[in-house]
Amino acid sequence: MKVTIGQINTTNGDLTGNTEKIIAAIEKAKADGSDLIVFPEVATHGYTSQDWFQDPDIIRHSLDPLDKIIPATNGITAVVGCIKPNENPNGRRLFNCAAVIHDGKLIDFAEKTLLPEYDVFDDPRYFEPNAGHYRLYEANGVNLGVVVCEDFWNDKTFWKERLYENDPTDIVLDMGADVVVSINASPYNKGKIGLRGKMVSHRAKLARTPVIFVNLIGGNDGIIFDGASLVADEEGDIILQAAAFEEFVETVELDVRKPDARGITGGEPEAIRQALVLGIRDYAGKNGFQKAVLGLSGGIDSALVAALAAEAIGPENLLCVMMPSPFSSEGSITDSEELIKNLGCESRIEPISDTFEVLLKQTKLDKPTKGGESLAAENMQSRLRGVILMAISNAEGRLLLSTGNKSELAVGYCTLYGDTNGGLAVLGDVLKTEVWKIARHINKTAGREIIPNKIIDKRPSAELAPNQFDQDSLPPYELMDPILQLYFEQKASPTEIIAAGNDAELVYAILNKVENPANEFKRQQLPPTLIISKNAIGVGRRRPITHKYRRNKDL
Amino acid sequence: MKVTIGQINTTNGDLTGNTEKIIAAIEKAKADGSDLIVFPEVATHGYTSQDWFQDPDIIRHSLDPLDKIIPATNGITAVVGCIKPNENPNGRRLFNCAAVIHDGKLIDFAEKTLLPEYDVFDDPRYFEPNAGHYRLYEANGVNLGVVVCEDFWNDKTFWKERLYENDPTDIVLDMGADVVVSINASPYNKGKIGLRGKMVSHRAKLARTPVIFVNLIGGNDGIIFDGASLVADEEGDIILQAAAFEEFVETVELDVRKPDARGITGGEPEAIRQALVLGIRDYAGKNGFQKAVLGLSGGIDSALVAALAAEAIGPENLLCVMMPSPFSSEGSITDSEELIKNLGCESRIEPISDTFEVLLKQTKLDKPTKGGESLAAENMQSRLRGVILMAISNAEGRLLLSTGNKSELAVGYCTLYGDTNGGLAVLGDVLKTEVWKIARHINKTAGREIIPNKIIDKRPSAELAPNQFDQDSLPPYELMDPILQLYFEQKASPTEIIAAGNDAELVYAILNKVENPANEFKRQQLPPTLIISKNAIGVGRRRPITHKYRRNKDL
Repeated sequence: MKVTIGQINTTNGDLTGNTEKIIAAIEKAKADGSDLIVFPEVATHGYTSQDWFQDPDIIRHSLDPLDKIIPATNGITAVVGCIKPNENPNGRRLFNCAAVIHDGKLIDFAEKTLLPEYDVFDDPRYFEPNAGHYRLYEANGVNLGVVVCEDFWNDKTFWKERLYENDPTDIVLDMGADVVVSINASPYNKGKIGLRGKMVSHRAKLARTPVIFVNLIGGNDGIIFDGASLVADEEGDIILQAAAFEEFVETVELDVRKPDARGITGGEPEAIRQALVLGIRDYAGKNGFQKAVLGLSGGIDSALVAALAAEAIGPENLLCVMMPSPFSSEGSITDSEELIKNLGCESRIEPISDTFEVLLKQTKLDKPTKGGESLAAENMQSRLRGVILMAISNAEGRLLLSTGNKSELAVGYCTLYGDTNGGLAVLGDVLKTEVWKIARHINKTAGREIIPNKIIDKRPSAELAPNQFDQDSLPPYELMDPILQLYFEQKASPTEIIAAGNDAELVYAILNKVENPANEFKRQQLPPTLIISKNAIGVGRRRPITHKYRRNKDL
Repeated sequence: MKVTIGQINTTNGDLTGNTEKIIAAIEKAKADGSDLIVFPEVATHGYTSQDWFQDPDIIRHSLDPLDKIIPATNGITAVVGCIKPNENPNGRRLFNCAAVIHDGKLIDFAEKTLLPEYDVFDDPRYFEPNAGHYRLYEANGVNLGVVVCEDFWNDKTFWKERLYENDPTDIVLDMGADVVVSINASPYNKGKIGLRGKMVSHRAKLARTPVIFVNLIGGNDGIIFDGASLVADEEGDIILQAAAFEEFVETVELDVRKPDARGITGGEPEAIRQALVLGIRDYAGKNGFQKAVLGLSGGIDSALVAALAAEAIGPENLLCVMMPSPFSSEGSITDSEELIKNLGCESRIEPISDTFEVLLKQTKLDKPTKGGESLAAENMQSRLRGVILMAISNAEGRLLLSTGNKSELAVGYCTLYGDTNGGLAVLGDVLKTEVWKIARHINKTAGREIIPNKIIDKRPSAELAPNQFDQDSLPPYELMDPILQLYFEQKASPTEIIAAGNDAELVYAILNKVENPANEFKRQQLPPTLIISKNAIGVGRRRPITHKYRRNKDL
């Protein structure tokens, strides 16, 4: 049996474009002599459509794309992620389902049962769960069990903790499925590609049943789907690992045990780099931005964003703006100029000193001094840079990329309406120590210094006051990041973070910064953040600003 | 039987403070000779705690507040909204429940069954549903049926459309409840107080069973709980309507048919005014701000915010900043000064002309002209005002109130990082035509001109270019607002809005503005918005920025 992986990059609401991609993939599958083609979850509308799924006109017309897709399936079976109205007057108005189409006829819909409501997911807001409609579908003499995303992710022999009691994949296996078809919109985060491989392999081996696991690819605001679809044979061996972070419409022979080489290569720093590049490219591309702009400070964060953006949209489309103030170091310009030369992008110098002088005088604020109490005047510099960058963005139609890293944003070491300004927070989910790793990885992969080592090795500084360094106000990033990682990614509590071997006082000090309402307030006004981890700042983590939860040793 | 309404204002995570309020209310109930006291949903922790409900330390200690509350209940029954760990290793880690406590002993927990996942609600993210544990609780010879919030809101004889099939209130009524106790965290929105009254009355009358409906009160970021608790007798008559927008711990005789006068008075403009005042007061107060600042433009929006803020935190704590530019009308200062005098608040003039000149020259942008293409230079003025206001906020520890109205924010007629700056968007859910109504209502109630009529009657203008008026770019607010109201509050689709009698071209024109990714992008970076309607901008409405849904006559 030949199977085609329909790993396509969908856009929310691009019904015409998505349908064309689906039909083109079906044509390719037919040309390959394929028996079955499988597409990701809600491929017709885009999985991340959110409250668009509540619009009565969208609901009423939700099956329209199938009218065009069905006639294209002569001689082949297609499993297409889509949405379907709920005819029962009670309950949510849609089902999230897989349309099973064969030889020009719609056979049935397999509806999603388990509706995730955690991290970035809000399925129960939109979808009614499958209330017990399970069956198998025959394709070329093979019985397919078809499940939608979360319905494959609740294997009691694989997960230590589970959110649901029932397992729809077990149900279709018990019914006698010869092959499990799992359609997904599973976002990238660190370690996820390996985890999926283990999970798919485990299930296939235990059930002695091949698994076809197809995943969505593409950036949608902050959420980045990596693709990396998988096929496992009945031994649990991965016989196909599709490319990650790009579309992949290729055919595999299910019965031949022959590991396929078309997979991704490279471990985590490389996967993160690819995720961020795809995230920038799709956010810009899908929203019609050809060009971008960012502020280049001479520090590592903006340097990395520049390198990633140059790759994503082409260096010729990237403008780097240097905006020195009286407190900028000499390297802030010279190091930046070296980077700009390496990347081959456009640049401009827009000093903020004159405006800063005028405004300081007008508002009667003191000039920042080393170690002084000059928050307002420090922030003012960052905000004037923000004004200049937004003026360029407005005047030239450039997407403004913001450059703050997750460690800073976590503890509030950033200026709201200043360096946080932008259409997309590229590193908002990347810890400072990860920023350094990715930068070194980029240079290593290139075999040359793209990001000058001077920038990588520089002592972190906001340069908003004389001789100011991050570590005047914050613990070293090497100590802070492991704590932040446990706290955000694992949702660990202080007790657990301390039990993992971190210093108690440091844990409380850092978490009291993170959880300070004044910092949550800033985080809630950030641009969409490219997500590379679980429970990321933004849609993945939801906290009130107003609260009096306080961490201490008694809790 | 005497019942005390424990309508208290809780703060997220203020376990000590909330517990003290609960105990103080129990003491008052005992002094009143009450048999039963009822508190709102999750009164111990604060209903709007969001992902704090996922923290292992918080979960582990979730029952701690009851240790202090239980001993205080000698001689009385207390129903206290709280959270309780789920002991089953599968499923969400908490139940949302009502602790039933009697005479110093914990009797049981009544767990919430129906978990709302719409508008601002995300219950399934945190809570495991009650899986069938229902019983009655005896208090003073009366059998109580106790239900938590949504479990009271699914009456098939009351609602045309329902999200759930089962009705936990019917279950406890069928078991023979003599009285239904409903504990709630039901946020205010327009018409909600009347709706609750009808719903409670309907249920009580049909079941011939008294209903004690207790609601939370208080602002929590944008979400404003109005209280307005209710008691209905078995005839369905409302025998107590508690005050709205303030704490209310009072005792009522359940068996005596005597309508209680302690209710709210005044219809919608008054309720909205009270909601906004409470929202400002609690956001400032619970976050430790004594003082606030705002930019006063001479227009109606900032004038109304100033009036509301002066009431919420006292005029002596409010600073109004006038920031004229070369395009400001004479009235922008003189009218503002009249308002400032009426309110008795502090004021300051900070012209932006000098800084604007310096920056315009530096960035080589043309000065705005009437009807010209000068978006970048127009926005720059707004952003420079934002810089000044944030400098004052930072330097003086003042909460910055942003003043844009919902009509503007809906169609993107605002400057991101400019007039949208702030800690709280006071009018972000108030349509322009509602702004006018509330302003007139304030003057009428006061019996004098607090907000000068010159400001109310002024032709709306952003004053960012010569002779610029809102209606150069936008349809009249009188035509726009009814369309926006149907679209946002009713989640109506274009087809439905047109069917309601609105001009089709106008509907498409307005919705294409609202749904433009460039405007969604702005809305996603707004401060928390005080919510007075269903599906409000912010947590109540969730849309991706990136999308290609397009409205047209074929859809």
